[in-house]
Amino acid sequence: MLHEVPGKEDILLASDRIKPFIHRTAVLTSKAIDSIAGIQIFFKCENFQKAGAFKARGATNAVFSYSDTELANGVATHSSGNHAAALSMAASNRGIPAYIVMPSNSSKVKIAAVESYGGIITFCEPTLMAREETLARVLSKENALEVHPYNNSRIIAGQATACLELIEDSPELDVIMAPVGGGGLLSGTALTSFFFSGHSKVIAAEPAGANDAYQSFYQKKFIPSIDPQTIADGLRTSLGSITFPIILEKVSDILLAGEGDIVSAMKLIWERMKIIVEPSSAVPLAALLNHKKDFRGLKVGIILSGGNVDLSDLPW
Amino acid sequence: MLHEVPGKEDILLASDRIKPFIHRTAVLTSKAIDSIAGIQIFFKCENFQKAGAFKARGATNAVFSYSDTELANGVATHSSGNHAAALSMAASNRGIPAYIVMPSNSSKVKIAAVESYGGIITFCEPTLMAREETLARVLSKENALEVHPYNNSRIIAGQATACLELIEDSPELDVIMAPVGGGGLLSGTALTSFFFSGHSKVIAAEPAGANDAYQSFYQKKFIPSIDPQTIADGLRTSLGSITFPIILEKVSDILLAGEGDIVSAMKLIWERMKIIVEPSSAVPLAALLNHKKDFRGLKVGIILSGGNVDLSDLPW
Repeated sequence: MLHEVPGKEDILLASDRIKPFIHRTAVLTSKAIDSIAGIQIFFKCENFQKAGAFKARGATNAVFSYSDTELANGVATHSSGNHAAALSMAASNRGIPAYIVMPSNSSKVKIAAVESYGGIITFCEPTLMAREETLARVLSKENALEVHPYNNSRIIAGQATACLELIEDSPELDVIMAPVGGGGLLSGTALTSFFFSGHSKVIAAEPAGANDAYQSFYQKKFIPSIDPQTIADGLRTSLGSITFPIILEKVSDILLAGEGDIVSAMKLIWERMKIIVEPSSAVPLAALLNHKKDFRGLKVGIILSGGNVDLSDLPW
Repeated sequence: MLHEVPGKEDILLASDRIKPFIHRTAVLTSKAIDSIAGIQIFFKCENFQKAGAFKARGATNAVFSYSDTELANGVATHSSGNHAAALSMAASNRGIPAYIVMPSNSSKVKIAAVESYGGIITFCEPTLMAREETLARVLSKENALEVHPYNNSRIIAGQATACLELIEDSPELDVIMAPVGGGGLLSGTALTSFFFSGHSKVIAAEPAGANDAYQSFYQKKFIPSIDPQTIADGLRTSLGSITFPIILEKVSDILLAGEGDIVSAMKLIWERMKIIVEPSSAVPLAALLNHKKDFRGLKVGIILSGGNVDLSDLPW
């Protein structure tokens, strides 16, 4: 049984458990971006992950670590984003239903992704309250198991495996960067770095227009995300009661990036690396380029969190 | 000394010669696209190539196979596209000047790419006649060596190395597909398949709106490309006196794709593979999807020719 904070063993077990269902994604480098940044960067390409984002790791680990009894009536969550598709995919792989509460203004692309994995969608008003109420109703009606997108130690242990592969595939990294929204990827990354690297510092990146994690981190108390304004749609959520303490203890710093810098960094990755990343993925590079001199001489790993973007609605 | 048509040895020599200067690009697969196509496809990702396209192979092979005497005054070409940047890069690697004649309406992105490799640009009116006249003037003024984008056996031998790597990295392919413009990539691919695979058929793909190679192939006489209408900007040129006979002899078929199909295939690759390819790269997949039933049960390799696209001007 997992404790609230995943241990070393939980992350290793997660890595073995999810292997048949996820991609071991490539770690790519770009001489052009290195020369702009003035350092060596190793990009862990979770944009190439199943269902298009690292979320497949956590969802798969959660769904495959619960018992048949716990999963007897399927799983449920509310999400407008990558967790919805990831949980639907994991549930489909395990042969159980996934009930997904989605705000009525979710993008067509995201709705189609959930449907393609057989997720059963209930639409609701696009407010957090409506999402939570609708999910409560679905949970009680279906008697399904809720799988929270990040405040769940099985999810965190799953997300932690991206960094495990990055460490295995890259030369010794001085810094590992991940974006922070609810903190599932970030707390997992920090735990992996702590257990398996020892010396790599973990630095988070957050949009300046959704800087609740930054404020929480420096005020050392939980500040919720209220009215976040950012194109990085994966990073608008608040930290969780499990993720925040891990981040407070194991993350070295949180750097901010403005909207223009995020779009520029995203375009830079598209143009120079010829790969598609979503805005949230570009936040660490944007923050790094804003603080270039602090990184001089370091080897930096960046987790490109996902590649799900509406190609008909690009920010340039 | 190379003959007009590169031999087996020329392709192997080219492969060794260019190795230090180019990427061995990945061969990627996509379950989603395989399931749409109903077959297994292996994508050779020349969109990840140096300077963003397979053209780096031919240009590097040419520039590094000529003697110091031949190159004493540098190289020159006219090109609005990927050959311009590739030749500039190769020349810069060899430490010689590259004189590039570009039409005045070339995209900013392409001009910037040439400049970034130190190419010396002369602009001219956007007509073939103006390009040829301007190049003749530059050649006589600078006494530089002309390196034609495709009708040059050293270029063809270089382009042939993409298929060589594809064959090495993929399971036995029944069909290898490449787009056809001037025929440098296609003739090189056909030669490599003939020399090193033996049994793989080579099938070309061409935009229906620029079907001069298709017409030439089936009428068995050279038909020039006049007023081509296609978004696939790399495929608007006519076949050459060296490339056409190779294609006539060694290519099994040329399939056509309409503009809508090209854009859809391009978007499919972006969305499902999360990689950026230019329209020309999408023509083979578009043609394959138009002729699905002819490919049933086959393993197909597709050369994704390049990834240089103006992100501010996308076709959707």
